[in-house]
Amino acid sequence: MTVPAAHCVLVTGGARSGKSVYAEALIRDSRLAPVYVATCTPHDAEMEERVARHRIQRGDGWATIEEQRAIADVIARESTPERAILVDCLTLWLSNLMFAEADIEAETAALVSALAAAAGPVVCVTNEVGSGIVPENALARRFRDAQGRLNRSIAEAADAVVLIAAGLPLVLKPSHAQPEIRL
Amino acid sequence: MTVPAAHCVLVTGGARSGKSVYAEALIRDSRLAPVYVATCTPHDAEMEERVARHRIQRGDGWATIEEQRAIADVIARESTPERAILVDCLTLWLSNLMFAEADIEAETAALVSALAAAAGPVVCVTNEVGSGIVPENALARRFRDAQGRLNRSIAEAADAVVLIAAGLPLVLKPSHAQPEIRL
Amino acid sequence: MTVPAAHCVLVTGGARSGKSVYAEALIRDSRLAPVYVATCTPHDAEMEERVARHRIQRGDGWATIEEQRAIADVIARESTPERAILVDCLTLWLSNLMFAEADIEAETAALVSALAAAAGPVVCVTNEVGSGIVPENALARRFRDAQGRLNRSIAEAADAVVLIAAGLPLVLKPSHAQPEIRL
Repeated sequence: MTVPAAHCVLVTGGARSGKSVYAEALIRDSRLAPVYVATCTPHDAEMEERVARHRIQRGDGWATIEEQRAIADVIARESTPERAILVDCLTLWLSNLMFAEADIEAETAALVSALAAAAGPVVCVTNEVGSGIVPENALARRFRDAQGRLNRSIAEAADAVVLIAAGLPLVLKPSHAQPEIRL
Repeated sequence: MTVPAAHCVLVTGGARSGKSVYAEALIRDSRLAPVYVATCTPHDAEMEERVARHRIQRGDGWATIEEQRAIADVIARESTPERAILVDCLTLWLSNLMFAEADIEAETAALVSALAAAAGPVVCVTNEVGSGIVPENALARRFRDAQGRLNRSIAEAADAVVLIAAGLPLVLKPSHAQPEIRL
Repeated sequence: MTVPAAHCVLVTGGARSGKSVYAEALIRDSRLAPVYVATCTPHDAEMEERVARHRIQRGDGWATIEEQRAIADVIARESTPERAILVDCLTLWLSNLMFAEADIEAETAALVSALAAAAGPVVCVTNEVGSGIVPENALARRFRDAQGRLNRSIAEAADAVVLIAAGLPLVLKPSHAQPEIRL
């Protein structure tokens, strides 16, 4: 089953599920010039190691842009029909927004607009964070609520949404041969 | 792929994944009189805001019943062929049962019987809570075990089970075109 | 849709999602002699109760081997074309390895080799632990990273990968009728 080329793809899944590897392969297979938008500045050894590992994984040929917050602007400025942009990831972006007490609804709306207006394809990586036990920490509860809402907004805007588990993709959108449920 | 109208649907997924929105749409599309069974009495501002947001989302025309525990009785009493009942959600119900030190197996059996005997369709919303790290808190571990068992019991009793992620449905039951795995 | 008999199956999912029940049914349906490899020695009442419950669930006729670490050796030694082996579960195995400060990459490679070389079919049960909020505890973060990597490695080696939710299977591999996503 083939579908038209996607303009915006959301790749979601749990931690270390293989989301980035899948997203990078999408970009590579497009044969467009790959642009990596990193939403984190590594601030500890654990994260530095992860960033370094990801860089090696991707290989050469990627342009890298570090942007903690203004990813809508980066997409607007950098997207061309010859480039494929990977935003990795929306979870760190959201956490940067919350830390800065930004208006998350407004920032989400700006990102949705930037995705729609992008001249070339954009793949966004995000995390599933809401399938554990309710966190005791109120900030963690607010974060998982915000992450759930953000994921739904971007999923609604995207042409394709893929859930990754154990490195394997389940396509959630476009919806495929599933039974139609009604009462 | 169309399937016969479902008598009982279980909608599961992580926090803020879009479960309620999906469940409400099922009820609305049935064109039956919608009945909302709220399993929580809001006891803090965070929850009050959420309840109010859900009410606005649903819109007018819903009858609302607040019932923390006896949802089997509510279904038995309120279900008619002209009504579609939404129970939102089994996770709060389970947490009420555990807080009251109720016999969860017996309560689950009563709910399964009420669902089977209901005169009209019933949609139950529940949560996936077992895909995070093992909680350090023993009560949280007991809760996620009980939630897992409850979800399986209701899924077994239901005609249709839908997993929601990023607002998008994956139909788990009736099982559809999947490869048949055998050794 | 039928696929060739699987040599190695990975069954993943959240806590209490019904993974073991599904895996045991695969083994039973094979009509081969069932061998249960338990990766835990129960060390508290909670776990003892769980182990006892699982044993009753499985019923008679299973050979049981308790092995906390050397499951690659057990598979090499015990697998025959007449036997079907169930390893339950890789999450406890990984936690034993981490506790012993073992070389997890090397142990994973040994397991992958043992699975490939096994004379008969092997079913491994594992857990999804990465879809909750980021744990505050650094060891828990390391564990969920290691679990994600382990799941991907075994999924890559396996012929079949099944995700269980609410007791119901979603086949992730072999990949089935899903839209093909490209940019």
